[in-house]
Amino acid sequence: MLHNPVPRPHLSLALRLLLHNLIQSIKMATVIDGKAVAQSIRSEIATEVRALSEKYGKVPGLAVVIVGNRKDSQSYVGMKRKACAELGIKSFDIDLPEQVSEADLIKEVHQLNVNPDVHGILVQLPLPKHINEEKILTEISLEKDVDGFHPLNIGKLAMKGRDPLFLPCTPKACLELLSRSGVSIRGKNAVVVGRSNIVGLPASLLLLKADATVTIVHSRTSQPESIIREADIVIAAAGQPAMIKGSWIKPGAAVIDVGTNAVDDPTRKSGYRLVGDVDFEEASKVAGWITPVPGGVGPMTVTMLLKNTLEGAKRVIEKNN
Amino acid sequence: MLHNPVPRPHLSLALRLLLHNLIQSIKMATVIDGKAVAQSIRSEIATEVRALSEKYGKVPGLAVVIVGNRKDSQSYVGMKRKACAELGIKSFDIDLPEQVSEADLIKEVHQLNVNPDVHGILVQLPLPKHINEEKILTEISLEKDVDGFHPLNIGKLAMKGRDPLFLPCTPKACLELLSRSGVSIRGKNAVVVGRSNIVGLPASLLLLKADATVTIVHSRTSQPESIIREADIVIAAAGQPAMIKGSWIKPGAAVIDVGTNAVDDPTRKSGYRLVGDVDFEEASKVAGWITPVPGGVGPMTVTMLLKNTLEGAKRVIEKNN
Repeated sequence: MLHNPVPRPHLSLALRLLLHNLIQSIKMATVIDGKAVAQSIRSEIATEVRALSEKYGKVPGLAVVIVGNRKDSQSYVGMKRKACAELGIKSFDIDLPEQVSEADLIKEVHQLNVNPDVHGILVQLPLPKHINEEKILTEISLEKDVDGFHPLNIGKLAMKGRDPLFLPCTPKACLELLSRSGVSIRGKNAVVVGRSNIVGLPASLLLLKADATVTIVHSRTSQPESIIREADIVIAAAGQPAMIKGSWIKPGAAVIDVGTNAVDDPTRKSGYRLVGDVDFEEASKVAGWITPVPGGVGPMTVTMLLKNTLEGAKRVIEKNN
Repeated sequence: MLHNPVPRPHLSLALRLLLHNLIQSIKMATVIDGKAVAQSIRSEIATEVRALSEKYGKVPGLAVVIVGNRKDSQSYVGMKRKACAELGIKSFDIDLPEQVSEADLIKEVHQLNVNPDVHGILVQLPLPKHINEEKILTEISLEKDVDGFHPLNIGKLAMKGRDPLFLPCTPKACLELLSRSGVSIRGKNAVVVGRSNIVGLPASLLLLKADATVTIVHSRTSQPESIIREADIVIAAAGQPAMIKGSWIKPGAAVIDVGTNAVDDPTRKSGYRLVGDVDFEEASKVAGWITPVPGGVGPMTVTMLLKNTLEGAKRVIEKNN
């Protein structure tokens, strides 16, 4: 028997497949499917919206304000309004001409502030040059600041023992992707690359509140690679295409790539393709988890806006009823 | 001559002394004398106060509110009021009984808010248990929040492109000690140990604004020593006596010790002595700069409160005249 074994081609094939998958799973990162996570959160939101509507006869309302005709802004606003419609959230569409005065825009914001059917107000940025963005954003009522950019919100996000009314959407998306992928944060070394008011800074404050040891790396950092190499969690939000190489990643780390950079690609019809701040091909061979670009953080950000709107609406509707 | 040299004992002594000093200066950190720095800032403040008084006939006013009879609080308040008197700042002394109601305390704060001679309001903490500290602190007018603890102030401190009206006193003291010692911050690795709302968190935000690469280490950090060992600048504010050992310090680093811990010492009349969060004896042999405890950050904190009061007064007086 030993010298003349019966060939078992099926078992050997299965074994080889098993081995192959095992090696692959050891070598390759789990790619976090942002689209799928977003979809499942959206269906959770839709369920809650229906419940609100049945119990109180009211639905969450989101006002999306756009000034002028920028193509990219119109596309973002279109996505937001469409997503509202899909989930049963009432969308208030405020489309203002490029030439609208700052005073008139403020008047619009004030009207939305007092409109009881509006629970969230989003002013699409950038605004035309003649309008002071910071001024407009601070006019939005704190209770409706679903973008979470008000300095009072950021202050409460930073402080121990205080909680902001809304978490900024992209940082919230990053943490949601980590938690839904089973990545724990407490006690881990987290490195945030970039320190923008919209992503890097609030993401680092959120990670700190979740008990990570947080380092913020930025354009003035002398040796980013040696710092990133120690990170169990990397949030990349620098806006630099593929700046983070595979060799900078600690084996097994969780890598959340917020970067969305257009780079020339003559093989595409559009002439460009989107890449993240992380070299995905290299990093996915080292990391434990990684988000792709596109299809990672992107689809989650609008979803978090909708979730913030739902939360704002619940606070008001459940308090008044 | 070569075989029978004339002895030159004086030169040799001088040389030996020179060598000794050289070795000492290589081996030992520069001890930052917080008392001396505070004294020189206080004389700068006094000069500015005189200038304001001569030009506008007005002086800065600081209201120091104390509730109850806690010995430590009374000693802190006494120091603050005495310092005001020394620099020509008018001190408004509000001493309220332990049993004062929250409503009455808020009434006092509101009166100080509208008093045009008061430019800064400090409510000494802790307050008695029946009073909500957070509520009281948010009642202080932002323009008079010389402690800089209002969440809106912290939010502006965190955000790029925004500036708070007042920087919290202790973090401001730390950065002032660094800059007056000639330690540059931009591009350096800075590690803040501790993340309190009063010191650690705002200190890390200030260092980030000054372009350091900032890591925040705290009680949940798994290997603080390996992180601290990479730091060009350490701000220790953990409240753990001598937790940071000499071997944790990178040679040549600047070490600012905010810790003020009382430890038993039977050789002292008082029965205790104050020690910092850093093992001073060990660390001073490794660091490039180090603050002692006491005599480092301590004397600077009250000075920064006076500086904030001056700045608040200048904003109001120069605007209205």
